[in-house]
Amino acid sequence: MSTGHHEASWRLPESDPSYRSTDIAYLQRLAQTAERGHLDSIFFADGPALFRDVGRRPSGTLEPTVVLAAIAAVTSRIGLIATASTTYNDPYNLARRFASVDHISGGRAGWNIVTTAHLEAARNFGRDDLPSHRSRYERAAEFIDVALKLWDSWEDDVEIGDKEAGVWGDPARIHPPEHVGEHFRVAGALTTPRSPQAYPLLVQAGSSDDGKDLAARYAEAVFTAQQTLDDALAFATDLKRRAVEWGRDPAGLLVLPGIVPVIGATEAEARAKEEELDRLIRPEYARAQLAKTLRVDPDDLPLDRELPADLPSEDEIEGAKSRYTLIVELARRERLTVRQLIGRLGGGRGHRTFSGTAEQVADAIQEWWDAGAADGFNIMPAVLPSGLEDFVDQVVPVLVDRGLFRREYTGTTLRDHYGLARPAHPHDRTGGRDIGRVATTTSTTHQGAHA
Amino acid sequence: MSTGHHEASWRLPESDPSYRSTDIAYLQRLAQTAERGHLDSIFFADGPALFRDVGRRPSGTLEPTVVLAAIAAVTSRIGLIATASTTYNDPYNLARRFASVDHISGGRAGWNIVTTAHLEAARNFGRDDLPSHRSRYERAAEFIDVALKLWDSWEDDVEIGDKEAGVWGDPARIHPPEHVGEHFRVAGALTTPRSPQAYPLLVQAGSSDDGKDLAARYAEAVFTAQQTLDDALAFATDLKRRAVEWGRDPAGLLVLPGIVPVIGATEAEARAKEEELDRLIRPEYARAQLAKTLRVDPDDLPLDRELPADLPSEDEIEGAKSRYTLIVELARRERLTVRQLIGRLGGGRGHRTFSGTAEQVADAIQEWWDAGAADGFNIMPAVLPSGLEDFVDQVVPVLVDRGLFRREYTGTTLRDHYGLARPAHPHDRTGGRDIGRVATTTSTTHQGAHA
Repeated sequence: MSTGHHEASWRLPESDPSYRSTDIAYLQRLAQTAERGHLDSIFFADGPALFRDVGRRPSGTLEPTVVLAAIAAVTSRIGLIATASTTYNDPYNLARRFASVDHISGGRAGWNIVTTAHLEAARNFGRDDLPSHRSRYERAAEFIDVALKLWDSWEDDVEIGDKEAGVWGDPARIHPPEHVGEHFRVAGALTTPRSPQAYPLLVQAGSSDDGKDLAARYAEAVFTAQQTLDDALAFATDLKRRAVEWGRDPAGLLVLPGIVPVIGATEAEARAKEEELDRLIRPEYARAQLAKTLRVDPDDLPLDRELPADLPSEDEIEGAKSRYTLIVELARRERLTVRQLIGRLGGGRGHRTFSGTAEQVADAIQEWWDAGAADGFNIMPAVLPSGLEDFVDQVVPVLVDRGLFRREYTGTTLRDHYGLARPAHPHDRTGGRDIGRVATTTSTTHQGAHA
Repeated sequence: MSTGHHEASWRLPESDPSYRSTDIAYLQRLAQTAERGHLDSIFFADGPALFRDVGRRPSGTLEPTVVLAAIAAVTSRIGLIATASTTYNDPYNLARRFASVDHISGGRAGWNIVTTAHLEAARNFGRDDLPSHRSRYERAAEFIDVALKLWDSWEDDVEIGDKEAGVWGDPARIHPPEHVGEHFRVAGALTTPRSPQAYPLLVQAGSSDDGKDLAARYAEAVFTAQQTLDDALAFATDLKRRAVEWGRDPAGLLVLPGIVPVIGATEAEARAKEEELDRLIRPEYARAQLAKTLRVDPDDLPLDRELPADLPSEDEIEGAKSRYTLIVELARRERLTVRQLIGRLGGGRGHRTFSGTAEQVADAIQEWWDAGAADGFNIMPAVLPSGLEDFVDQVVPVLVDRGLFRREYTGTTLRDHYGLARPAHPHDRTGGRDIGRVATTTSTTHQGAHA
């Protein structure tokens, strides 16, 4: 919902609740605001199913790759990250679409790779059951392997363009994948020449054991929900260790925890904003959704009691395992009642919420950055567009003054912004272009599909 | 290839053969030229496989739905038609993407429905063989049925937007398809609210018996390759008769033959342009492709002889049946040598080629229009961008003066341009909005994937 990441944001006087997520002019303006702040990218969560109760809050989203193409046309630098599922797509179609967005945007595309842990999605694609967590991740790994082969199916210099001889390109520089695997058989080359970034930045957000292994193997950026500095540090350390085990340089994998800032002129004003938002959550809806995530009956979750003691273990969960564990641990650690837990989840949905002045938000960001718990942050304003405008106009200048964030864009592609090199083609011995690392990185999400 | 519909267009001095089809700024300018001429739409052919020999001519295309989204952002009226395959997509994903493009463009989306008759495509999606012609068309019909259910899964007025009560929408106005069929099971509603046009204009181009039945049942516009007025008239008459058999008003189905205009200041100049283009075709490539279409060995097609007498019958062809028949009939009717046939196909690929002055091109269009052989035309310039500019600047004014074409856009959606009503929702008793028919309709194609 594009009125903000807090589920009640649409009920504020400032919000226009009318189909914000399908209003392309509104989405384009959000992207332009993020670009004005020199943020690295905008990011769209997504899932191929109508998850939400339309009674509860603004519903209705557009398919994000076409949204990014429309945003690319009115921006020039901001990175463009779309979520797409490896479980409910074919590699040929999806690799082609992301390569196309990378061409259209001049090298600004990113793909947030998800396996889609929702029964509702499975039932839109001919299945009665959610595929098992393990099988979804096995398919995801093979999907990415195939996509990489497709993105490398053209060398960078296929074109010869000899009009005189009537020879346009060199067929020897085309390399059809001829992939035969467990989940996919894909014979031919992509229709699309190798793109400005070679392929989209690979992003991942799963925090389960399988998810972390997938990220360690392939991802260049990882979005993660972490409530405490210690948890965030442990997560980043674990992920980078796993990347080393896969033979990778851990500097090529950026960890980006989410933060839900609520910014006020004073700390008291920010807190009052947050309290107003929490007051506007309708607990009966939120409780039903919590009950679904926890696989219990809503009646087993009285609003003013803590969570019941006898919840299923993570191993029994086939859906979003890491999200399940995060919620249960948050509730147990802080001994939250169901009502308090709902307030926390309705605001940040498991992400760190922080209310304060612009200076205080900058402090909160710097604290994690200095501790090595984050390579950057996924900024998820509680209310949009005002929360993004506040961040860009008030917090970014503080970070820039402290030398923690760029004053201007120094590159043109999304990998440039993240300080990552363009992947070399396997047949190219000159290697990829390497550029310096930027001080910190920041993205913004404005479509939360993880309910 | 976006240097024009003639396969040798890229070899002309005016052409830039460097990845024109992946240069979004170039494609956006073509669309703006078409919009300047008040054409109904632009149209992208497509197939999920690299069909072409990259040695032969410029290759490499982008996925067209994302291209259209990027074009939508820099245009306001021109319709945006993309080809997509029912054989190699899932209905949920594709319905959602077209609904999204319709939202993004303010109601300008069209879907050219194809079943994709290429073994190369099958092999990119885990198949060893091309599915049979019949089974592809059965799947296509069910695919469209599911897509229509998904596009009607939201009523037009789901939103309530009651901030006070905290109720955003009315769940009773959401209608999950719960579709269970031969090829698909799709349970849930689309993520995307009903779009400005309700759903994209449905376009079809198959001219086989199965193809014509599919068009008669669902299509609102049909692209067709017809060489003679008599053939075009017979085709249009047959198609409209079939539409009546499906219980439809034949006025809701527009037949748009392709025309490949080569425009010169004099007739001699136009003919010289066409001859220059034909001279630039490399016959060895073209012969290999012709041999593949005809399912014979290239050595059985000497360049200066007519086609062999013993070709397979259309019934034995599982690929593009109607195209096969068109080629064979064209060669037999005009007793063309293989070399002459290659010249015709390299220019218009089975479509009517017409060289002459702007007045003569307008005459050629008017002749078919007056005879009732066309409801409009698919303009396929031999050379781009100059051929489109010539058409817009020289032919359109003649058609406008003759009262055959609009002077300004009178509507905002693609259906408005075609004189078709917005489809009513099945639960809406007030019916669709009806608008007057325009005098004639014209589209332009600029990416030929049918080789």
